[in-house]
Amino acid sequence: MDERIREHARILTEWSAGVEAGDDVVVLVGDGAHELAVAVANELGERGANMLTLAASSEISRAYLRAHDEEFAAAPEYEQQLYEHADVVLSLRGPTNTSEASDITDATQQAYATARAPIREARLDTDWVSTIHPTRALAQQAGMSFAAYQEFVYDAILRDWAALASEMAQLKSALDAGETVRIQTGAGTDLTLSIANRTAINSAASVDYDSHNLPSGEVFTAPTATEGTVVFDLPLTYAGERFETVELTFEDGEVTDYDADNVELLETILETDPGARRLGELGIGMNDGIDQFTDNILFDEKMSETIHLALGRAYDACLPADEDGNDSAVHVDMLVDMSTDASLSIDGETVLKNGQFQLS
Amino acid sequence: MDERIREHARILTEWSAGVEAGDDVVVLVGDGAHELAVAVANELGERGANMLTLAASSEISRAYLRAHDEEFAAAPEYEQQLYEHADVVLSLRGPTNTSEASDITDATQQAYATARAPIREARLDTDWVSTIHPTRALAQQAGMSFAAYQEFVYDAILRDWAALASEMAQLKSALDAGETVRIQTGAGTDLTLSIANRTAINSAASVDYDSHNLPSGEVFTAPTATEGTVVFDLPLTYAGERFETVELTFEDGEVTDYDADNVELLETILETDPGARRLGELGIGMNDGIDQFTDNILFDEKMSETIHLALGRAYDACLPADEDGNDSAVHVDMLVDMSTDASLSIDGETVLKNGQFQLS
Repeated sequence: MDERIREHARILTEWSAGVEAGDDVVVLVGDGAHELAVAVANELGERGANMLTLAASSEISRAYLRAHDEEFAAAPEYEQQLYEHADVVLSLRGPTNTSEASDITDATQQAYATARAPIREARLDTDWVSTIHPTRALAQQAGMSFAAYQEFVYDAILRDWAALASEMAQLKSALDAGETVRIQTGAGTDLTLSIANRTAINSAASVDYDSHNLPSGEVFTAPTATEGTVVFDLPLTYAGERFETVELTFEDGEVTDYDADNVELLETILETDPGARRLGELGIGMNDGIDQFTDNILFDEKMSETIHLALGRAYDACLPADEDGNDSAVHVDMLVDMSTDASLSIDGETVLKNGQFQLS
Repeated sequence: MDERIREHARILTEWSAGVEAGDDVVVLVGDGAHELAVAVANELGERGANMLTLAASSEISRAYLRAHDEEFAAAPEYEQQLYEHADVVLSLRGPTNTSEASDITDATQQAYATARAPIREARLDTDWVSTIHPTRALAQQAGMSFAAYQEFVYDAILRDWAALASEMAQLKSALDAGETVRIQTGAGTDLTLSIANRTAINSAASVDYDSHNLPSGEVFTAPTATEGTVVFDLPLTYAGERFETVELTFEDGEVTDYDADNVELLETILETDPGARRLGELGIGMNDGIDQFTDNILFDEKMSETIHLALGRAYDACLPADEDGNDSAVHVDMLVDMSTDASLSIDGETVLKNGQFQLS
């Protein structure tokens, strides 16, 4: 077996999920994630954890969902009990066809998701981690050869996470202490956001940091009172359609002017609900292993020398206990290239300039 | 998809398991059983049942078991709860390598099985059915091409089970009413067995008949007081070793004389425990779709024009409530060719002669 797969499994079980002897671990095995599952099984055996492997097959799910009349039972008890008694859930995603759900109607998917909400809640109550095993389908989506894509994924995953967590902790401290962020780029961005009373999340790919994706490598918070203009100059696919550039102007936290190469799609997003016109997230990518676009937001938003802002829903973890953050049915991340002629400052102090952090 | 796979899934869910709307169904998907799982998912969706798919991968299990220190936790609660709340368990076996467990020690496998006994009990308390999806590995084990093996398997599975169940019911009635069975063949068999007070099982591949394997197609009971000689003239693999012929002589129910082409292996079996020298089962194969040997006892013992006797453990279902049947750690089925110059009679009345049943 490829030594990188073994190392991936080691990081996943040790750093990310912190699996211990006796833990009841559910492993969700995607259609193309078999090899990673074998490596994870080896790690779980060595750690003396219990293992139950679920087949998380999008082909099997598709057949089931298309045949069903959509009157889904609410949270079947056997599955609910499984997750309520589980300590850890490891989701090994590895699609063999990223378009497999394309002929399941939105109505069916929504009805199924709604019926299963309590199961999802129970799963989110565990020490869950979601990761990606590189497959040919994902390589194709990224427009890369399989070998190059494998290198890309393992560069992003096989990192010194403890060192990165320390570096990100410095940025988190600066954000937690700060009140105002200003972002400026030569492409036309000049944006001011309030982060007063907000808590930044050090997303270090470990449940110990309340960070549940491997790879991760970003620090994010929930801004308010956005003012000014931002030019998103890195591409984005939303609902199967692509943006190359988006420009938004905010007044008093709300979008008042906008432009895009795909303006109809942008309007669809902005008109979802009132929260879709406000920002839910400011994220700062810090994963040096991610150095190119792959049209997969899980990787793209962690890319170093970028920041991202999301229209829509804010994460509760960033908010004071007595405050509701921005609410919306959507959360659309869009990226700004910070590698050249760009800066991000906190209360007037520059912390990111031309892709380089200036943290103390 | 091959229409035979769809038909297999239909028989499995409808005839064998009797799946109904709202049933909580666990589907165990073997390494090579993906296509059957897709077809089963379609059936479960159409029936409005709930579905949870487990990855029953021998490669993943092997990695886990070999890495573990063998101090397995007794019946982890999350898996126990899953099966205790399940209505139906469908096991889709489809190995991609029938030797995958060959480098897991017996001690490890036993320790794991012992720790999981309560989970197995909970699973056996459901309407469970085990079936086989034809794979290249199984074709290889049978010494057949893949295409020929698929035909063989579907001939055995895609039958008119209701009609076969009726035919087998006639044989069951005759056995239930009878006291003594006599088996005679030109190869040297002349054996008398008592079946007084025993209940024969009509193994019709349906939970309604307490029959949990698809395919099935045998009627079996638990004989006592065996007298005479039997020549087993069809091959058998036991613990990875092969017999071509075995001859056993019984007095008062116990083996008193024996011979075999692999006599050491036979002695290993006979010396397991006292019960290993007595018969636990008389089975009569009635599946006309199984017309050749494939070195897989699940198929071989259902073959029409054969009967089989098992040294060792008897099935409780055949016994009166107040009686213990033959007990042993082993249950070794061995076959007699009944196609020519052979007869089986009950209380002096011939019911099987040269492969043909004479039932009223």
